[in-house]
Amino acid sequence: MKINTLLSIFAPKDVKFFPMLEETAALLSQSSAYLQELFSCDDKAHREELCKLIKAEEVKGDKVTGNIIHELNNTFITPFDREDVHALADVMDDVLDVINRCAQKVQLYQPQRFPSHTVTLVEVIKKGSDELQSAVNELSNIKKTDLRLRAHCKEIKKLEEEADTVYEEAITYLFSQETNAVELIKLKEIIQELEKTVNKINSAAKVITSILVKYA
Amino acid sequence: MKINTLLSIFAPKDVKFFPMLEETAALLSQSSAYLQELFSCDDKAHREELCKLIKAEEVKGDKVTGNIIHELNNTFITPFDREDVHALADVMDDVLDVINRCAQKVQLYQPQRFPSHTVTLVEVIKKGSDELQSAVNELSNIKKTDLRLRAHCKEIKKLEEEADTVYEEAITYLFSQETNAVELIKLKEIIQELEKTVNKINSAAKVITSILVKYA
Amino acid sequence: MKINTLLSIFAPKDVKFFPMLEETAALLSQSSAYLQELFSCDDKAHREELCKLIKAEEVKGDKVTGNIIHELNNTFITPFDREDVHALADVMDDVLDVINRCAQKVQLYQPQRFPSHTVTLVEVIKKGSDELQSAVNELSNIKKTDLRLRAHCKEIKKLEEEADTVYEEAITYLFSQETNAVELIKLKEIIQELEKTVNKINSAAKVITSILVKYA
Repeated sequence: MKINTLLSIFAPKDVKFFPMLEETAALLSQSSAYLQELFSCDDKAHREELCKLIKAEEVKGDKVTGNIIHELNNTFITPFDREDVHALADVMDDVLDVINRCAQKVQLYQPQRFPSHTVTLVEVIKKGSDELQSAVNELSNIKKTDLRLRAHCKEIKKLEEEADTVYEEAITYLFSQETNAVELIKLKEIIQELEKTVNKINSAAKVITSILVKYA
Repeated sequence: MKINTLLSIFAPKDVKFFPMLEETAALLSQSSAYLQELFSCDDKAHREELCKLIKAEEVKGDKVTGNIIHELNNTFITPFDREDVHALADVMDDVLDVINRCAQKVQLYQPQRFPSHTVTLVEVIKKGSDELQSAVNELSNIKKTDLRLRAHCKEIKKLEEEADTVYEEAITYLFSQETNAVELIKLKEIIQELEKTVNKINSAAKVITSILVKYA
Repeated sequence: MKINTLLSIFAPKDVKFFPMLEETAALLSQSSAYLQELFSCDDKAHREELCKLIKAEEVKGDKVTGNIIHELNNTFITPFDREDVHALADVMDDVLDVINRCAQKVQLYQPQRFPSHTVTLVEVIKKGSDELQSAVNELSNIKKTDLRLRAHCKEIKKLEEEADTVYEEAITYLFSQETNAVELIKLKEIIQELEKTVNKINSAAKVITSILVKYA
């Protein structure tokens, strides 16, 4: 029996983190779907319901993240570095938080309309969340899915660059066209929150890329 | 002589951190009291004085936090994990900072009036700070005061949820009633800063809860 | 052969970090120079060019910071604590980011004019960046340049206090004089971003001060 094999008995790769990370990624994808619906919905009652559903996903996410961190503190060996699992769980939790803040601002501010830029940004958020979910689902098999994982992360990077351009156009449009200062404040903050969401999704992709560098 | 006893000679529980943490908690409670006074005060000169007093508490807090971190770097054994003491000191310092930012915004923006929501939020901040101070004062005796500590943290959580509701009402009120865009900007930022303060107090309570999980 | 000398063979002070830190400091100083030019420039085309140049410095900074962190992960012994190098690289990267955000906001918001306070703040940023660069350039010789290093950090602290006063005057001026709410929003955000830049430069100086305490 080789020393490595021996060690691996005492240090079994603990696989319970994968389902939990995948669960958070699924919440995130669902939350983005609700957000997309919110930005194309005119019915006030339905909007309110969507905001509640988004809040519920965020609360579920808090719980799963709490469980991940609890397990990390009580598990000797984790599939990747403890810090990497922690960072990925944290940043996905951040995405759920910022999506919830987007929805909350829509609900509290009640802007008169959504400029087309916001619809584009929300679409980018949905696409990015789905890419992120696909990436997280491949993590448990990182050596075999190396290339696909990289492709997802690259796609997210591309989406983030696309969102940057849309964000700049949106703000330029707002400050040159919107004459109602209160509407401008409302939309500016909502647009900034949407852009932060895209950035956070990209931060999650960066964590996955750094895991790839180490383990794939 | 048992090995544990022997070890405890070389690793005495270092108790000097408790008075320093308690000092920060006391500054925080004092600072909240000034803040509450600020939001019910119409006299410009007295307002200015209160802002200076709040700033002074923040400066004192910086010093104590600096001392705590200095001691952490030079002490082999701390009563809790080094990281927990650091986290608690940091987050209480954050509370002092954000209270100071609230006061500074009131002073710089000079809003025409304070909506009743702001008065309620400041009241929640004072209550939360006092609960936090009580919790910190029990830390040095964590095993005996387990239940009381938990009660303080739960009360802070409840206050934070209360503040969430008040915050949402405040922002909804502002965006639907305030027609003066400049006043709206002023009050929105002040209200957001107040809500951040409550959140930070709750973050401090979360650090204490996580210490409880490990040591009580 | 003394044990210390022996150890130093296995633990050679790794000097490759200094040129990288110095490179980031140089980018930062260049970026501040462009920012200063931006705030005294009326020509729209030249402004746009300056924003692109600032963005380019930020991108270069990202690369150097990435290299520093990559090297830190692959080097056993670093000249200072791994964490100190990391913290300094990170905070200088933050300065480049926030300078870029200042420029981006000028470009997107297109304010009608720059109040004199903004020009003063940008001047403070340039001076602070130059002091920071001088400090970083002395780091490789920390024991001999102890006093000069401290002087640079003190000067940055003084600049930060100066900027605090200018910031407060600027915001007070804006809220009492600017009647156009949209212009007020634009200028307020730009002024806040400039103040953040000064704070970040001071954070970098604080990291250097904490290195000084340990090694000089």
